Amino acid sequence: MGRVTRRTPARQIRLSAEQAVTVSTRPETLAVEEPLEIRVDGRALTVTMRTPGDDFDLALGLLLTEGVVTRASDVRRSMHCLDAGEDGRPTYNVVDVTLAADVPALPASSQHPLLTTSACGVCGKASIDAIRLRSRYAVRDDPQSLSPQLLASLPDRLRSRQKVFDRTGGLHAAGLFTAEGELLAVREDVGRHNAVDKVIGWALRQERLPLTGHVLCVSGRASFELTQKALMAGLPTLVAVSAPSSLAVELAAETGMTLVGFARGQRLTVYAGSQRVVIPDEQRDHAAG
Amino acid sequence: MGRVTRRTPARQIRLSAEQAVTVSTRPETLAVEEPLEIRVDGRALTVTMRTPGDDFDLALGLLLTEGVVTRASDVRRSMHCLDAGEDGRPTYNVVDVTLAADVPALPASSQHPLLTTSACGVCGKASIDAIRLRSRYAVRDDPQSLSPQLLASLPDRLRSRQKVFDRTGGLHAAGLFTAEGELLAVREDVGRHNAVDKVIGWALRQERLPLTGHVLCVSGRASFELTQKALMAGLPTLVAVSAPSSLAVELAAETGMTLVGFARGQRLTVYAGSQRVVIPDEQRDHAAG
Repeated sequence: MGRVTRRTPARQIRLSAEQAVTVSTRPETLAVEEPLEIRVDGRALTVTMRTPGDDFDLALGLLLTEGVVTRASDVRRSMHCLDAGEDGRPTYNVVDVTLAADVPALPASSQHPLLTTSACGVCGKASIDAIRLRSRYAVRDDPQSLSPQLLASLPDRLRSRQKVFDRTGGLHAAGLFTAEGELLAVREDVGRHNAVDKVIGWALRQERLPLTGHVLCVSGRASFELTQKALMAGLPTLVAVSAPSSLAVELAAETGMTLVGFARGQRLTVYAGSQRVVIPDEQRDHAAG
Repeated sequence: MGRVTRRTPARQIRLSAEQAVTVSTRPETLAVEEPLEIRVDGRALTVTMRTPGDDFDLALGLLLTEGVVTRASDVRRSMHCLDAGEDGRPTYNVVDVTLAADVPALPASSQHPLLTTSACGVCGKASIDAIRLRSRYAVRDDPQSLSPQLLASLPDRLRSRQKVFDRTGGLHAAGLFTAEGELLAVREDVGRHNAVDKVIGWALRQERLPLTGHVLCVSGRASFELTQKALMAGLPTLVAVSAPSSLAVELAAETGMTLVGFARGQRLTVYAGSQRVVIPDEQRDHAAG
């Protein structure tokens, strides 16, 4: 965990109602943000601002959600390059992924086919046509059935496993759940799309793809790119603690995915794919309509 | 405001303590997210996922914070391309910026010199060396002086002007303030870096750069890229409602910028540049040390 957080001296200032000012100086814990350069077969592909840790999962998840690889065996090797920082020690901020011989090389026409950032899988693609990727998995017919009680409980379960957030207040999280609510993997990162890529990269390495019947829960908003990443992994359901964007809802509706927002303990809002959210008739409050 | 929000049918589910489930279906308001392709002199440069509106400010702010332009007169013309969507009507999702004749062309060596996303100005740059930009403005010697009361009040002032957030719960905001706390411009966007670019692009068009003596306030966390954008505009102080990242604090400390986090009404934390936060001796609670 050494590089996931960092301590820094900081000055805390508190203001009382009587305008008295209290100043104290003590170390604060920060979430670490560092660049990760991802290379494929030695070629620099993209830089993403990420929290160090699970870098191979991040790289593999990114390559999966961008449609470059489809299974664990598509990758022959992942390694950290031993590039040195200003202090002469390795930074571990470059990962090189060597693809298996039978995986199509990246299109030579595009110098930077994958362009990501600390919050996006769309990220600097050079044209609008490039932003929609076609998933090899259809989620529309996934017969998954989920209770609203389970869905509403996922953010709290995710939150209880956000170890770094507790110390910094500065990280996004993504959690992969079974339909029964078992938390299989949770990852935290300064970039919300990195957290999702790390979870999906983990699932790829575990040869769990497609993630039929699973649920992805994210700690923030549901954007287009997070929805697309979930689709690329075959996930039928995405649950967000906060609001979805218009394009996230459109993409989910088009593809038959279930998209839940504002999932908070005693409530949730279903924006698409409500057939998977099943309420036993005896629980339904008929009086309320 | 038509394209800033969109209504969608959604199903609200509430769970009572007694496990009764109340379901209602009513329209929800979503923050619109759409891709914006930015072209320079006809060449597609990048796509960012943004909330429509102030697209020219977004493009100009991006070009300024990426070091392509430095003043309003560097841009000869900005126009929406009349590209048609599936319904045959213009999408207004492509902006073409024509640079003035004396502005150096973008480096031909880089196919996509600018790579952005819904949350980042670092965004898919092809190598780590490319992420640090050198600002033409030095903020270290900016003699700005700010009271903690003023700094702590900025998020509430920003929040009171976040019109779209109130309806959707789904937008980031950036506000440009004078050192006296006057709010000059506020912009909301699904991408936090877009909100900052829109504010900076507005200031560029107003020929207010460098933003010496001003304060930028952002509704979320302070990342490396937001800190860098503020520096590129000559802003001496960045105030964030939430946590800064390690690299944001390092960059601020290196460049002599003031970085404030967790600014919330009665408290704030100063991570760098605390010389600008001035507390009159008579207000200081000496008892507290």
